[in-house]
Amino acid sequence: MSDRDAVLSRVRERVDPSPAEREALAAAADELAARARGALDDLGVDGEVVQVGSTARGTWVSGDRDIDLFVQFDPELARPELERLGLEVGHAVLPDGHEEYAEHPYVKGVFEGFDVDLVPCYAVESAAEIQSAVDRTPFHTKYLEARVDEALAADVRLLKQFLKGAGAYGSDLRTEGFSGYLTELLCVEYGGFVATLEAVADWNPPVRFDPEGHGTRSFDDPLVVVDPTDAERNVAAVVSAANVARFQHYARAFLDDADEEYFFPEPVGPAGEAEVRAWLAERGTTALAVRFETPDLVEDQLYPQLERSRDGLVRGLEGHGFDVLRSAVWANAESVLFVELSVAELPAVERHDGPPVAVGEHARGFYEQYADDPAVFGPFIDGDRYVVEREREVATAVEFAEKRLGSVALGAHVASIVDAGDYEVLAGEEVPPLAGDFGVELRAYFEPEP
Amino acid sequence: MSDRDAVLSRVRERVDPSPAEREALAAAADELAARARGALDDLGVDGEVVQVGSTARGTWVSGDRDIDLFVQFDPELARPELERLGLEVGHAVLPDGHEEYAEHPYVKGVFEGFDVDLVPCYAVESAAEIQSAVDRTPFHTKYLEARVDEALAADVRLLKQFLKGAGAYGSDLRTEGFSGYLTELLCVEYGGFVATLEAVADWNPPVRFDPEGHGTRSFDDPLVVVDPTDAERNVAAVVSAANVARFQHYARAFLDDADEEYFFPEPVGPAGEAEVRAWLAERGTTALAVRFETPDLVEDQLYPQLERSRDGLVRGLEGHGFDVLRSAVWANAESVLFVELSVAELPAVERHDGPPVAVGEHARGFYEQYADDPAVFGPFIDGDRYVVEREREVATAVEFAEKRLGSVALGAHVASIVDAGDYEVLAGEEVPPLAGDFGVELRAYFEPEP
Repeated sequence: MSDRDAVLSRVRERVDPSPAEREALAAAADELAARARGALDDLGVDGEVVQVGSTARGTWVSGDRDIDLFVQFDPELARPELERLGLEVGHAVLPDGHEEYAEHPYVKGVFEGFDVDLVPCYAVESAAEIQSAVDRTPFHTKYLEARVDEALAADVRLLKQFLKGAGAYGSDLRTEGFSGYLTELLCVEYGGFVATLEAVADWNPPVRFDPEGHGTRSFDDPLVVVDPTDAERNVAAVVSAANVARFQHYARAFLDDADEEYFFPEPVGPAGEAEVRAWLAERGTTALAVRFETPDLVEDQLYPQLERSRDGLVRGLEGHGFDVLRSAVWANAESVLFVELSVAELPAVERHDGPPVAVGEHARGFYEQYADDPAVFGPFIDGDRYVVEREREVATAVEFAEKRLGSVALGAHVASIVDAGDYEVLAGEEVPPLAGDFGVELRAYFEPEP
Repeated sequence: MSDRDAVLSRVRERVDPSPAEREALAAAADELAARARGALDDLGVDGEVVQVGSTARGTWVSGDRDIDLFVQFDPELARPELERLGLEVGHAVLPDGHEEYAEHPYVKGVFEGFDVDLVPCYAVESAAEIQSAVDRTPFHTKYLEARVDEALAADVRLLKQFLKGAGAYGSDLRTEGFSGYLTELLCVEYGGFVATLEAVADWNPPVRFDPEGHGTRSFDDPLVVVDPTDAERNVAAVVSAANVARFQHYARAFLDDADEEYFFPEPVGPAGEAEVRAWLAERGTTALAVRFETPDLVEDQLYPQLERSRDGLVRGLEGHGFDVLRSAVWANAESVLFVELSVAELPAVERHDGPPVAVGEHARGFYEQYADDPAVFGPFIDGDRYVVEREREVATAVEFAEKRLGSVALGAHVASIVDAGDYEVLAGEEVPPLAGDFGVELRAYFEPEP
């Protein structure tokens, strides 16, 4: 047995569900489905109950405890009626469940230790006729059920765990990684775990697949996998360029030197205050953090807002002449826009180019505006233009964060927080204590991995 | 009499040579010409003696004391013979003169208080047949003599003095301004001093004139005046964009508000050490000066070398991440490359982008080069690329000037000086004492005028 096979064999032992786990899950799913059908009968409504997702297809990684049941209603049903019936069935199946809201409301609850989603959708004829995104999900399960046998399902589990190890698994907007469905499609495309890694190692993005050969439009994403059940959709739309690159990096690394650690990396330990202080001293940079109470948003709304705010802060700083070396966003109860600056202080004056002297009235206006202003140096002529050196609006990055943050594009909730002044700017000696709440994030920042 | 006429009238009194000055100059020129003809007779050689330049045309500004006599020899004469005969005549005319070298050697000396150049050239039939640049000069004088009457000559004097006041008079490579010949051509073109200013105020460079309508080629200069005596030559080739703009600026200023001071500005007084210190503190910048003994070169060689060296220093600093607000070069016995920095210090680390991860071998090589290097942060992935943060080669502008100046493009003589280490770098408290040798230059730098 090769080293690689030995490693994979050990990983399989950890990711393959045991017979007992499979039986328990099947039993729970059957019981929940039966309850749902009973509830439909009690309501006197037609509806199909289907199990979807990885636990339906046998591709879940041991320990995942998600059961997704979809109740498919008549497409003629009005949407409010669908939502009402869906929730009634949900509450009947999961008496202790609570309502959540994606494209429409559904019931989430716990049953025999499993996390259960009970979601209403329309029983459309084909994925092309879907009325909401969830209507598509049963088609995904049908498509894969016909193509993923037990051997391939085992390789799907390896690939999922591998992507988790690389930090690239999950289609949420924080991770911007590979969804379960996408992972399975890749395994189907290449025929197995190692074959997928070998192919990915040689990818040259943009990479495009169209398993059903029915794609009609082009996409501007680094990875394009046309949904076999919907010609208009890129299954990999959410995957960032960095996660494509990361997948390539770790694929090569594993093929070079197989190691179980790629699947189960050591968790990053939190950095201490003294470490952060030492890193900053070693780098000779100036760190700045904008900190505020995390707005009450689901993660898929929170992280895009934080990213947009980070972009606004960075572009605002750069627009005022400060150089940002690197930046990050972190959130738990509090959120932090973290910026590390190469240049955090600038002179009192800045160059301000006027028009070419030849541009008659405009040039004259510029000259006259500044000619008698004792606060500027100039106007003088450089090349064909008038130039003055005038007082810089903002001379330090901290001043920008404190006084001008409201002038840049921020996420909507962050903008409200900034407008209300409900944030603080940490700099200098105030930064290392962030290790108390964000020690893991700080270590990942200062000891970055691919 | 309008204010403007009153001002011009007062200026005329200062720039028009008095009858006594004219007579003295004419007598001296006649005597020198007679001596030259005598010398030609003694040598038994044919040759024509002509007076050229502003003193020949009556367009000199009172107090200028240059007499230029050209001896035109047979174009069939071999060049060494022309040079030998030219020097013999020169020494005969100016027994106390000394030899200088332009395109060929000539004799320079003082006669009755006048600075006299005695220059040999070829008596070619037309300016198109010239063998060296000086052969063209007599044609300039002939061309202008026919077009500049006494009234226009008076306006030429005004315009020359006006350009002197603006700091834009002189075709030397330090000034990069307007030559006497160019000034006269402009006055001829527009018909007088005020008419020239009115036209110049509305120039929209590039501006092109071709008085004889015989130009055959295009030029990439902001001002193009095709030489009436040579269709291939731009008389204004040396005029910088800044001097064109300066001329426009002062033309407008004078037309708006006539003042004698435009012709005779108050000389700039030297700045003191304390003033320089205060300016730098007010601006919050970091000044740096590279100082060395001025190489033994004529100004037309020295200043282009200093400018080239200044460019090299500035581009080198910017290439290493430092921001230059403004810079200058100054020379007397010592030369200074003066640089004022917005950013003079940078962190210990800098970002270094590697290849896209997808670019197989190249990406792998980059990763492996840095993966185990304890001195770098990373490699990590940003977008589709590997990135490391590694130690910056040069962390301060002073360090760059001290250790890396030899790596940038410098003027040839300056490069030798730098290679030999015969220069010093002044920074911080060492800069204000430069006021001792460069007080006027420092005031002009910190109180810049158009």
